[in-house]
Amino acid sequence: MTLIEQLNWRYAAKKMDPSKAVPQDKLDRILEAIRLTPTSSGLQPYELLVITNKEIREKIKDLAWGQSQVVDCSHLIVFAAWDDYTAERINGSFDFTIGERGVGTNERTEAYRKNMLTNYPPRGPAVNFEHTAKQTYIALGFAMIAAAAEEVDSTPMEGFDPVALDELLGLRAKGLRSVTILPLGYRDAANDWLAPMKKVRRPRSSFVTEIN
Amino acid sequence: MTLIEQLNWRYAAKKMDPSKAVPQDKLDRILEAIRLTPTSSGLQPYELLVITNKEIREKIKDLAWGQSQVVDCSHLIVFAAWDDYTAERINGSFDFTIGERGVGTNERTEAYRKNMLTNYPPRGPAVNFEHTAKQTYIALGFAMIAAAAEEVDSTPMEGFDPVALDELLGLRAKGLRSVTILPLGYRDAANDWLAPMKKVRRPRSSFVTEIN
Repeated sequence: MTLIEQLNWRYAAKKMDPSKAVPQDKLDRILEAIRLTPTSSGLQPYELLVITNKEIREKIKDLAWGQSQVVDCSHLIVFAAWDDYTAERINGSFDFTIGERGVGTNERTEAYRKNMLTNYPPRGPAVNFEHTAKQTYIALGFAMIAAAAEEVDSTPMEGFDPVALDELLGLRAKGLRSVTILPLGYRDAANDWLAPMKKVRRPRSSFVTEIN
Repeated sequence: MTLIEQLNWRYAAKKMDPSKAVPQDKLDRILEAIRLTPTSSGLQPYELLVITNKEIREKIKDLAWGQSQVVDCSHLIVFAAWDDYTAERINGSFDFTIGERGVGTNERTEAYRKNMLTNYPPRGPAVNFEHTAKQTYIALGFAMIAAAAEEVDSTPMEGFDPVALDELLGLRAKGLRSVTILPLGYRDAANDWLAPMKKVRRPRSSFVTEIN
């Protein structure tokens, strides 16, 4: 399938088939695509939790308005963003990148680092989490396309209690906060009211303005 | 190229070649991929501006710390989110979707609509714009992958003055606010300091936690 065909094939499955599991090689490629997601200043300000444990997913389902995909999928991805930008995290990212590139640092890089250290931490956790959370949505997009490329279904969800989920998974103690969750699995088309429905998007004419 | 190969091929070009333009068919497929982006409750709470006009792009460059890709690309995409969720916008989306599907409305749909009309507008524009802006980041992710699939370079940018850009493009009068911009064009690898650098991402082991 071309990318456009994949995007027309995918939809947010409302009912998944609990008897089917995503094979490890497909899961690995989906996680690799997420890992390769670009983020603001390359900070990758989030982590992923990949949950197969059924008992924990039953509890998450209860925090997510009973949405059945949470337990009927085979893998539940939780996108958890940094709760703040700290000097330690910024320096960790810069030092890691410089080390990996093996070319030493330079004036441009150090001016960039200094600018971030000066400006980001003082903005405080509310502003900074708003920014880190946004970056997770790029990764969410990458994840959905990577799943579609593997003919794996995925259902993006904001509809859960993030405070309760953070508590359940111990995220705050790690400096993380849950943003979105993404069940990966296989559609149960025969029992999904949404499966036969037309995919609806506004036409390009009411969506795109060209300035030539 | 496989998706993973495409993601390793892409990078945020710091220098683009102004003599090369993205062909119309590639641009069309990139815009179609963005149009197909899934968003919260299917509201698609944003619009795109596609700017080729050189004079306007020169002005935008001045609002974007002089980043040369803004003028050296062939097409500059501006992702502009709704400034608020209003009853009119919510009803417009529901009515459009119901009309397109041609199956009439039902209890589930109307309960969903009522829930949104009750809860979204009263949250106010600050909370609502934070939410619409997040949705544009999913579209930004789709755009970057679609560009890579066409072997077109793209450079995601948050580094510009959004208030000044909104003013320049008259976005506020349309109920929109700029969130990110994305130049589409072709890398000038010989003159781009970033082109020869290793792509750096944290390893999976420090990024993914499995809960089995």
